[in-house]
Amino acid sequence: MRDPSFAKGFGGPGQEQFLQVLDRDEAERRFRAAVDCAPRGVERVALDSALGRVLASDVVAPVDVPSFDRANVDGFAVVAEDSFGASEEVPRQVQLADEVIHTGVVPTTIVRRGLAAAIATGGMVPRGADAVVMVEHTDTVDVSGFPNVDPPEGGRDVHIRRAVTAGSGVSFAGTDITAGETVLRQGTILTSRDTGVLAAIGVAAIDVWRRPIVAILSTGDEIIAPGQAMEPARIYDSNAQVLADAVRELGGEPRRLGIVPDDIDRLRTAVREAIDIADVVLLSGGTSKGAGDVSYRVVAELTDPGIVAHGVALKPGKPICLAATRGTPVVVLPGFPTSAIFTFHEFVAPVLSAMAGRAHELGSTVQARLAVKVNSEIGRTEYVLVGLVETQEGALTAYPMGQGSGSVTTFSRADGFTTIDRHEEMKSKYAR
Amino acid sequence: MRDPSFAKGFGGPGQEQFLQVLDRDEAERRFRAAVDCAPRGVERVALDSALGRVLASDVVAPVDVPSFDRANVDGFAVVAEDSFGASEEVPRQVQLADEVIHTGVVPTTIVRRGLAAAIATGGMVPRGADAVVMVEHTDTVDVSGFPNVDPPEGGRDVHIRRAVTAGSGVSFAGTDITAGETVLRQGTILTSRDTGVLAAIGVAAIDVWRRPIVAILSTGDEIIAPGQAMEPARIYDSNAQVLADAVRELGGEPRRLGIVPDDIDRLRTAVREAIDIADVVLLSGGTSKGAGDVSYRVVAELTDPGIVAHGVALKPGKPICLAATRGTPVVVLPGFPTSAIFTFHEFVAPVLSAMAGRAHELGSTVQARLAVKVNSEIGRTEYVLVGLVETQEGALTAYPMGQGSGSVTTFSRADGFTTIDRHEEMKSKYAR
Repeated sequence: MRDPSFAKGFGGPGQEQFLQVLDRDEAERRFRAAVDCAPRGVERVALDSALGRVLASDVVAPVDVPSFDRANVDGFAVVAEDSFGASEEVPRQVQLADEVIHTGVVPTTIVRRGLAAAIATGGMVPRGADAVVMVEHTDTVDVSGFPNVDPPEGGRDVHIRRAVTAGSGVSFAGTDITAGETVLRQGTILTSRDTGVLAAIGVAAIDVWRRPIVAILSTGDEIIAPGQAMEPARIYDSNAQVLADAVRELGGEPRRLGIVPDDIDRLRTAVREAIDIADVVLLSGGTSKGAGDVSYRVVAELTDPGIVAHGVALKPGKPICLAATRGTPVVVLPGFPTSAIFTFHEFVAPVLSAMAGRAHELGSTVQARLAVKVNSEIGRTEYVLVGLVETQEGALTAYPMGQGSGSVTTFSRADGFTTIDRHEEMKSKYAR
Repeated sequence: MRDPSFAKGFGGPGQEQFLQVLDRDEAERRFRAAVDCAPRGVERVALDSALGRVLASDVVAPVDVPSFDRANVDGFAVVAEDSFGASEEVPRQVQLADEVIHTGVVPTTIVRRGLAAAIATGGMVPRGADAVVMVEHTDTVDVSGFPNVDPPEGGRDVHIRRAVTAGSGVSFAGTDITAGETVLRQGTILTSRDTGVLAAIGVAAIDVWRRPIVAILSTGDEIIAPGQAMEPARIYDSNAQVLADAVRELGGEPRRLGIVPDDIDRLRTAVREAIDIADVVLLSGGTSKGAGDVSYRVVAELTDPGIVAHGVALKPGKPICLAATRGTPVVVLPGFPTSAIFTFHEFVAPVLSAMAGRAHELGSTVQARLAVKVNSEIGRTEYVLVGLVETQEGALTAYPMGQGSGSVTTFSRADGFTTIDRHEEMKSKYAR
């Protein structure tokens, strides 16, 4: 079913199908005002499934870490004063207690002046002791004063060859993490380092934000799914895959609803179903303002508020259509791959990040010298994909890539992009 | 069951339990010589499950992209020469063909000098045409010469107001990707950009390397699992979680085998089972060279070749024990969290990356000025965790974090680290 206005629209007053080409920032402002970016609700996951998830609340440590005064070294728990003045030449001598303090047990020995207890790294420092002397700075001797290997029980002294201060060789309870301390903040995207901290405070399950669901609809009679045999005049659907994986990379959950032909009834049904199941609806495939594409007409039927921008002063990306209905964003991305992914990252990614409960992560920015001048039209923001090459001096030179937004490879091969603002006509020196 | 050598080992000749403290590079050399780092074999996954996986072979495009000469704009397919000399004042006039070329269909019109065919963006350029004039640079007029909106079929001309060259407005077949071209290389970690390229060439399933399986065993009587109630002298097992998620981050698949008490028979059984099911075996929990830990003795029973390094001149991380048996690495990581994760990243991560089929990714390096002097011992490599603060001039200052390797938070809060080489005694100016 073809759009009968195609031939008619050419050359007549109907030619300008955009409602109004908006400035980028104004388009974004209207879009953000119409969509509900709040996180989607909380779900509890096991810590071992939490990697990459976003914390739904601050995490307060319920326990001290360590939870007891812990020996940091293998050695002897002592009263530090007993070591004062000790040296290699004149060691200080204390009596060795019978108990050997292993890890995981509560020692019974009470250390006092003149007494030391052997303790393993990780062991609980016994009451009375305030330091642990490293075994390397001691000798165990029998009561006769001679070093020995295998003495009879109960008849040994420890010679301390180095003075220690109180606290030496000990991690006091709560020095790493104190009970009541906020260890991780709401909105943190959990890495292995964070899950380790959660494990350390004994957390086995954690509240994270539900992943926002993003419905992805491909439109266009020329689009065929990867895996099918190529036919003349057809093109494989790459946008759906890029978008699905970009959604995953941003912490969302894609729902791929397949390819819908250019049939207004079928597309209307598909869009309605998508709005029912998803937090964000993306349509992609309609390549331009030309005919053969019914996406805009279906989206134009939405209300509360419906379309907020159709046509934005961007290159690539001008044909984007931003809409929302009762808080749910519905976006028709341009069909050309580079345009689709740029406008996705410009308009949809920040909304998705907010719904996922995380602040919008900006890519990193580097300073580079543009290898050639790049011209642009005043009045629209232009993105120029660049490849970066490091010069011998360590500086970066940016080479503009082919600007064809129809290419799938340009975006894939670029190292980044530079922006030519709508008030600028040219970028000639530094890309940032 | 305690290690009876604990008391005996203290102070006597048996005190030095390390086989030989090795230089870091020598330890790594011996370890790498003993382990089989080859990728683990190929599995075929659906493209939609391929994000983050590693390509097991080069991918060659089976088709051209686009697969036909495609219109880049809405407009009229023409012979470029027909537009030569056209201007706003003196447009060139050609006859309009009946066919309107929509996307997805093979046009039947053959364009010749004097004839133009309306074509939508993404449509197949008809035979004979070599350019597409943008609709914005044309007027459709009836044969009388007056612009009109809704003319009778078959009676219209197109006025071309701007000259185009051959190829203008057209993406020729294969200009984005040419059939036979290698689009992605073996070892690529697939991002959304790559999966998009694969979709564009029609690939629906792809060969990736199997994820290496990493068995993780926690040892130590003092270790309890997160979720259990804290008890005196105990500590929650954070290493197993950090390691499991670090393995995931590196493209491996962790198998957590739980906490094994300090019982040589049970640990021996657990290590044997781990070697059977896993590509890498990690033990963690034994905190130092002290007693209460039987990991080393169990690993010492391995052969072909067994232990290759026990004790490496590293801080933190000296107590690491590197072993392998018939190509499978078996590593006893130090129990202290910071030591465990550093030595994991130093010795295990490169092996895991290689097994996963990807080159070892180095973290990024920045230049920063150290805020204070940091001293180190000659003869061992020392890692100093630092926090980075940006100065007003945009330079970075690195503040060393507390160096306690027993901390779980230091590693989590650091921005990176600097290395003090074994030949250096001090780092006083630039961290890199």
